[in-house]
Amino acid sequence: MFVEKLRAAQQKNQSFLCVGLDPDPELMPHADVASFLNEIVEATRDLVCAYKPNLAFFEALGVGGMQTLLESIRGVPAHIPIIADAKRGDIGNTARFYARALFETYDFDAATVNPYGGRDAVQPFAEYRERGVFIWCRSSNPGAADVQDLPLDGGGALYEQVARLARDWNEHGNVGLVTGATWPEQIARVREICPDQVLLVPGVGAQEGELEAAARAAFDSRGGGIIISASRAVLYASRGGDYVGNARRAAEALRGRINLARDALLAGD
Amino acid sequence: MFVEKLRAAQQKNQSFLCVGLDPDPELMPHADVASFLNEIVEATRDLVCAYKPNLAFFEALGVGGMQTLLESIRGVPAHIPIIADAKRGDIGNTARFYARALFETYDFDAATVNPYGGRDAVQPFAEYRERGVFIWCRSSNPGAADVQDLPLDGGGALYEQVARLARDWNEHGNVGLVTGATWPEQIARVREICPDQVLLVPGVGAQEGELEAAARAAFDSRGGGIIISASRAVLYASRGGDYVGNARRAAEALRGRINLARDALLAGD
Repeated sequence: MFVEKLRAAQQKNQSFLCVGLDPDPELMPHADVASFLNEIVEATRDLVCAYKPNLAFFEALGVGGMQTLLESIRGVPAHIPIIADAKRGDIGNTARFYARALFETYDFDAATVNPYGGRDAVQPFAEYRERGVFIWCRSSNPGAADVQDLPLDGGGALYEQVARLARDWNEHGNVGLVTGATWPEQIARVREICPDQVLLVPGVGAQEGELEAAARAAFDSRGGGIIISASRAVLYASRGGDYVGNARRAAEALRGRINLARDALLAGD
Repeated sequence: MFVEKLRAAQQKNQSFLCVGLDPDPELMPHADVASFLNEIVEATRDLVCAYKPNLAFFEALGVGGMQTLLESIRGVPAHIPIIADAKRGDIGNTARFYARALFETYDFDAATVNPYGGRDAVQPFAEYRERGVFIWCRSSNPGAADVQDLPLDGGGALYEQVARLARDWNEHGNVGLVTGATWPEQIARVREICPDQVLLVPGVGAQEGELEAAARAAFDSRGGGIIISASRAVLYASRGGDYVGNARRAAEALRGRINLARDALLAGD
């Protein structure tokens, strides 16, 4: 089960931090994607609960992109789950092939999925009971308001209804949600609707102060159920010099801040 | 411009038919994807206005999947546009890499895009002014109702608001919409909101009778502005015997039925 693997990794590394693998040629300290990401993984693998390769960045590399992705994650220890950030979503028959690609062909532990196609766009992923499925619920970008915040007839915003659907779709206990770090109030609302599901919270690191608020809003009542993901803040902690050491120190600092936020929350501060 | 290339292809082949390239190993008459799709393309390239490879089916083939896609479309004449059916959607920075992958790395003429992330998930695609962008608006699957039909505060369904957004996002005249063939009433509503944009209508072929109703609902006032897409009905017209000849005959029949529906519409029948 994905959730058990995640919990074991969180326990072992005392970490709710996920490092997002977004290889941007304009930000990388050198041009070899797989070698750079192997350096990052080696420097952080005792500090994280998951890695999250973002498929867009690998697809942009060309026909060898997915091979490069596989080479980039070969140093990830077997006990650390890998989440394919793919935001796939399409009608049933096509969704089955996307799920097959991510969970069979590439053997990822989990994937992010877009809910716009409704239940039968999501179910082909969730039917892989051993894998995790994260429904894209409320994102951190300005445009999120255009669609996700639309007020529905009968009350509430669209993202809240998507959270309710993600709760209904969680028949096998493997469905979580993606909620961007920049909107702690929306994270809190999603946590209220889905008290027992894992929240994947990307977008951490750029803005000071957001991390603690996002983490406090996202933790479940037992101080678990979250994955906080940082990409650029770790990968490009520095773009030259000791970029590997700086990535490690950035990951260590984020891990520590999340754990402190958890301690404060559980202490009732 | 994508729209001009599309119109020229429609004119030359007297066709609004697009053939969707969905290589399903369980339905294919033999196992060589690229060779099978080359046979289909060769048999239909004077009958269509576009081809639409569905990326899910190629991604499921493994690390060589996108290379296979490129080999599968190498026989498409330069004047026939190729639409990447990818339903990509993510926040701004990631969307830029998805757009770069589809429009630069792979040089597709157009792509389908998911609107859930709002304007800044769509804009990186639409900024390629020479390329076409089809916003996934109302799909043909049963689950479409779960999200796309949700009634909004103030009236109308979510998909109607997405159609309005797609109209607003069409600053460069290169944004169209995807509206599934099984719901002619919803297609008509989208056409009402977006009188001048191209509608890509997939899902034709399985159900008799839907084609004419879908086409009549989708045509703009000048009897243009549509792409009707069939995948399985052409690719797997027969799964053995003269499958290439049968694919050609199926495409010819669909092209003819769409053109007859257009004639009837323009004659006021």
